[in-house]
Amino acid sequence: MDSCVTAAEARAAGHDLAFLHGNYGQRTEARELACFHAIADRMDVPRRLRMVVDLPHLGVVGGSSLTDRAIPVEASPLEEAGLGTGRSGIPTSYVPFRNAHFLVAAVSWAEALRASAIYIGAVEEDSSGYPDCREVYFRAFEKVIELGTRPDTRIRIETPLIHMDKAMIVRRGLELGAPFELTWSCYAESEVACGICDSCALRLRGFARARAADPIPYAART
Amino acid sequence: MDSCVTAAEARAAGHDLAFLHGNYGQRTEARELACFHAIADRMDVPRRLRMVVDLPHLGVVGGSSLTDRAIPVEASPLEEAGLGTGRSGIPTSYVPFRNAHFLVAAVSWAEALRASAIYIGAVEEDSSGYPDCREVYFRAFEKVIELGTRPDTRIRIETPLIHMDKAMIVRRGLELGAPFELTWSCYAESEVACGICDSCALRLRGFARARAADPIPYAART
Repeated sequence: MDSCVTAAEARAAGHDLAFLHGNYGQRTEARELACFHAIADRMDVPRRLRMVVDLPHLGVVGGSSLTDRAIPVEASPLEEAGLGTGRSGIPTSYVPFRNAHFLVAAVSWAEALRASAIYIGAVEEDSSGYPDCREVYFRAFEKVIELGTRPDTRIRIETPLIHMDKAMIVRRGLELGAPFELTWSCYAESEVACGICDSCALRLRGFARARAADPIPYAART
Repeated sequence: MDSCVTAAEARAAGHDLAFLHGNYGQRTEARELACFHAIADRMDVPRRLRMVVDLPHLGVVGGSSLTDRAIPVEASPLEEAGLGTGRSGIPTSYVPFRNAHFLVAAVSWAEALRASAIYIGAVEEDSSGYPDCREVYFRAFEKVIELGTRPDTRIRIETPLIHMDKAMIVRRGLELGAPFELTWSCYAESEVACGICDSCALRLRGFARARAADPIPYAART
């Protein structure tokens, strides 16, 4: 849903859109890819401006519950802590350096397309605990883009959600007409969202606090 | 050959080695992969510590003579300029943001392996003209690693060749016993090196200036 609202922000800013999706061996890979194309269809992004990158080596390196079936997906600490502010430390769902893989694919493509900006739905707030979702990280990455591309290439990284919490994202998405019914957030399941993993818990809490109905079905609701 | 000498440097520094290779739709992909395994065999790198990443999207984005057969591989400007110092601007062989793709794969793997350093055979001197081969770029990338990985992860980027020219690299490789006969540099051909592309011209000039014999055969020698 963060990517979907981010795409709606880019559209609202007047950009022509090109959509990038990454498969990296995550449990819900097929479902996420289907959502990608459904949202692209809804936003009239032509096929030639959709790129799907396969990053199977991200699954191979292991170390994450999102890609390694030997590591269970944690029940949400939000739940354990009574919808608290999250835990210190890094969730088991952290995929080593994942967002960098998306960004480098986006930068290469953006440079070839002569695009002016990369939009990414990273969220620093809401205690996701991923080091590569922080604004300071994206600003450092922009420096790498500036130094590592052609002298006349100018590509910004836009993170319109970076300081929002999930409730703000829900409200902003509703304002922009983002198609939440086409999105997928669950880390554990692909058919009916589990309702209890970190990602489901954050999403459900966001809709609840925004006093809006989440249009997708859940197996369990916290 | 730069990667091979770099691996020899890492070995000489006392590290246990893990080898990463990238396929990105370059014309000489199969030959480079065969060289990768031959060098890994020679340096006793076990199979479980070799990773081959497929980056076909790097070929798909286009914009480079290395991956787009509609763009001819340039004859070397070294030749046209009488082995001069190269031209201003960016060669047609520049692949948009290529080294970042190798680095992010290396960082994810290094973090999972708890490796302390990534060695890369980038060379700033010798007028290669690639923006992502400069020391300032790698230092900026280290900042992204520091910010984008777990708080206890420490991964340096080591670029032992960065300020060497090809002649120095040849001499250093010979000192370290780097197996030059197993390496491949030609951008245009996979069986017998062309001898006239940028990469062949730089290599041949390096061996000539080091007063050493290049052990691989060439179709044409400048």
